[in-house]
Amino acid sequence: SCMYCDVNRAFGDLLPAKNGEEPTMQFLLEVVDILTNYVKKTFDRSTKVLDFHHPHQLLEGIEGFNLELSDQPESLEQILVDCRDTLKYGVRTGHPRFFNQLSSGLDIIGLAGEWLTSTANTNMFTYEIAPVFVLMEQLTLKKMREMIGWPNGEGDGLFSPGGAISNMYSVMIARYKYFPEVKTKGMSAAPRLVLFTSEHSHYSIKKAGAALGFGTDNVILLSTDERGRVIPADLEAKILDAKQKGYVPLFVNATAGSTVYGAFDPISEIADICEKYNLWLHVDGAWGGGLLMSRKHRHKLNGIERANSVTWNPHKMMGVPLQCSAILVREKGILAGCNSMCAGYLFQPDKQYDVTYDTGDKAIQCGRHVDIFKFWLMWKAKGTAGFEQHIDKCLDLSQYLYNKIKNREGYEMVFDGVPQHTNVCFWYIPPSLRGMPDGDERREKLHRVAPKIKAMMMESGTTMVGYQPQGNKVNFFRMVVSNPSATQSDIDFLIDEIERLGHDL
Amino acid sequence: SCMYCDVNRAFGDLLPAKNGEEPTMQFLLEVVDILTNYVKKTFDRSTKVLDFHHPHQLLEGIEGFNLELSDQPESLEQILVDCRDTLKYGVRTGHPRFFNQLSSGLDIIGLAGEWLTSTANTNMFTYEIAPVFVLMEQLTLKKMREMIGWPNGEGDGLFSPGGAISNMYSVMIARYKYFPEVKTKGMSAAPRLVLFTSEHSHYSIKKAGAALGFGTDNVILLSTDERGRVIPADLEAKILDAKQKGYVPLFVNATAGSTVYGAFDPISEIADICEKYNLWLHVDGAWGGGLLMSRKHRHKLNGIERANSVTWNPHKMMGVPLQCSAILVREKGILAGCNSMCAGYLFQPDKQYDVTYDTGDKAIQCGRHVDIFKFWLMWKAKGTAGFEQHIDKCLDLSQYLYNKIKNREGYEMVFDGVPQHTNVCFWYIPPSLRGMPDGDERREKLHRVAPKIKAMMMESGTTMVGYQPQGNKVNFFRMVVSNPSATQSDIDFLIDEIERLGHDL
Repeated sequence: SCMYCDVNRAFGDLLPAKNGEEPTMQFLLEVVDILTNYVKKTFDRSTKVLDFHHPHQLLEGIEGFNLELSDQPESLEQILVDCRDTLKYGVRTGHPRFFNQLSSGLDIIGLAGEWLTSTANTNMFTYEIAPVFVLMEQLTLKKMREMIGWPNGEGDGLFSPGGAISNMYSVMIARYKYFPEVKTKGMSAAPRLVLFTSEHSHYSIKKAGAALGFGTDNVILLSTDERGRVIPADLEAKILDAKQKGYVPLFVNATAGSTVYGAFDPISEIADICEKYNLWLHVDGAWGGGLLMSRKHRHKLNGIERANSVTWNPHKMMGVPLQCSAILVREKGILAGCNSMCAGYLFQPDKQYDVTYDTGDKAIQCGRHVDIFKFWLMWKAKGTAGFEQHIDKCLDLSQYLYNKIKNREGYEMVFDGVPQHTNVCFWYIPPSLRGMPDGDERREKLHRVAPKIKAMMMESGTTMVGYQPQGNKVNFFRMVVSNPSATQSDIDFLIDEIERLGHDL
Repeated sequence: SCMYCDVNRAFGDLLPAKNGEEPTMQFLLEVVDILTNYVKKTFDRSTKVLDFHHPHQLLEGIEGFNLELSDQPESLEQILVDCRDTLKYGVRTGHPRFFNQLSSGLDIIGLAGEWLTSTANTNMFTYEIAPVFVLMEQLTLKKMREMIGWPNGEGDGLFSPGGAISNMYSVMIARYKYFPEVKTKGMSAAPRLVLFTSEHSHYSIKKAGAALGFGTDNVILLSTDERGRVIPADLEAKILDAKQKGYVPLFVNATAGSTVYGAFDPISEIADICEKYNLWLHVDGAWGGGLLMSRKHRHKLNGIERANSVTWNPHKMMGVPLQCSAILVREKGILAGCNSMCAGYLFQPDKQYDVTYDTGDKAIQCGRHVDIFKFWLMWKAKGTAGFEQHIDKCLDLSQYLYNKIKNREGYEMVFDGVPQHTNVCFWYIPPSLRGMPDGDERREKLHRVAPKIKAMMMESGTTMVGYQPQGNKVNFFRMVVSNPSATQSDIDFLIDEIERLGHDL
């Protein structure tokens, strides 16, 4: 029960109510108490990662947790209970044993940054209402462009709501660069344009193709080697093939850190081809961009300085809270050229300050969430050096996992060799399948192993790791490490847990 | 100086560091202390709305506030100073005298909801990692569809990153409904499609036209009456004109609450025309959707139940923290049909739970920020009744302003009659212009009045209200009330301040 709040208190007692200051402070501190307890437990390995329930169970209302909305207000005490329940039945994505997503971990500085951002409750679209945040965004984007290697960090960019939207921006900008008349006349003003991206790339390039009016048929998938990296010769062959059919190649996406394999496409070789055929080169570094912060690993992105645009999500490998994704563009002015509508009622040119700081008209959004502050604050607190340490540590950990299982009984690696990123892809082969010859029966059985282990893992709530099929490969586990709280002991635990749960399958 | 934190402490002392729990709790509580002080001041009328500085001043570093990022970490003490400075040089959007945007106010329950959301730090794209939030979204969207008036609240929807993106979704879905082959074959598979929207509508419809490959020339602007409402006969005439030219009318946007005038297009009459010509009807209720919560005002949206899709931003009129925007669709399944790519590596069909709750593939994004919780929590705390009271109060306040200035010396209303929404649009005429005959000279001078007053207002930091030109009307003030902390005395203050600052112009 609640220490501070009178059971009869309700939202109407809070600010801006008269005498609302005291109840407001008490309520907020009570909420903070719930949140800080959650933070403590998140890092505590004796707690579960999750307390799994099926949708119908939660919808029916577990132990009085009622999700339904009603006409009448609830008391503040009940609101606090709702907050506790919401956290209780959620997933601790910052738990040292949560490995399910490319984004994991709970960075305390980033968390503080998000709390401040919510309290400031403003919008990025003009300097007028977000002066500090707008400047922080500008300085941070410049720093990121310097790390990419564009001269003097010149160029442009924005933080956008996720890597898929950042990738969509890149396609829009490329189209505007080569066929600016599409902005006013539509796709019928352009010839049949084609986009190229790897069969291992993120599906957002295809989504952008569909949304922007290219059509998914005009998103040509490139073949990869056994490690999931684009084969440059295949790109060139497909460009020539498209040209021969009368289509116009426009855009090539090179992935720096693919979602499943963590593969880095050979950017320099792809850049040579883009130069030769005058194509826009985008690098999707949503997952792998963070490696630019590491002197040891940044060579994997060699050639990125030749890209026309880059997607880089600090909310993935750099541990920034969700969400924080940047689209960076080498050519200045093209982002505004592509997207501006010059709506005088939103962006007044006759303000008393330098309105080039009003970034709203560059975006496809109008209001834009403040995603920069947490990242800026983390950069201040850690320095570039701190990000580097984090990244190097995660890559070391994944190599530890790789070394541990590559020759271990009951494991098969999905591809050979040290992973390029923290992605380690493997099958666990239960004893019952170990002697079985390769063939449809084994494949079908193996396909069901990972989902079964995952289901048991979630039921027991001890750890979480993702699985998926890829191409003709049946379901396998994809382990990724981006969580700063994970240690070798957590990797050991995961292996033990997979074996415990999967042994009798 | 900092009460709790040792000056030598840095981010590396925080969790997940060994013995990191105590420093983490101390650091977070220190941050909360900064934030709660800010909250108190936000509601205190004796504080300024903002402490204005030009970009170059902030970039040069005021009183040691250094925005630049560096390689080396800062101490936690410095991080706390950075937090204080960030708030100090920002804008108090929750201040009772902040009227600059459609989104204003600082709702305490919503704020608590955002703090929890950041702490949970997860992503909406699967039930697996956001079970509670996914269900909250589903239930809340259903409730919103019920309020729109769709039978049994059936349909579909998503929370998206802002009204512009929600409007973009509506255009994409309309295109998919009538020309599904565009998804695979691109816009060349469709005839020349045209979209209709009012000349007073939000520029996001035009942005969507540009982005999605229609071209802005194919976004036909509809004429409005003197109150900014679409003239239905003009819509019908323009549909017929487009058809005669061989174009194919696809989509009509009716605005419920325009950005500047707060006008509500006559939805029922527009719906009749859409039915007659078999066009998709979208209602952009980003700003006006909130009025559905009010028994007194919801008649202004009569006919909305006939729309095929609706944009409704609770972060505007309903005071939910940024951001929270819903795209609601009457036909179930079409959102997924339009956007899904069925990426097996992201959305595994063989999970142990009902995967229809995995919403990620419906979105154009991949990761999706949790925008639902704050809204759900506010709805719990206020009930529908609480939202209704808030909305009715804001509309009453704007009518108070309207009544106060409509016949006051030195004011001219931009349009006649009681405003439909909280938008009150007016010119302040300084004494020097009052005797001047209408003509170019007066227009030019009047055009400069609002920017000058606004600049002085920002320099003195006492209040904030927006201005803009519209069509052939020179710069005028657009007052809007969505801030729950505003009272009649704040309206009085605004008027006094405009007169004080503008008297000698």
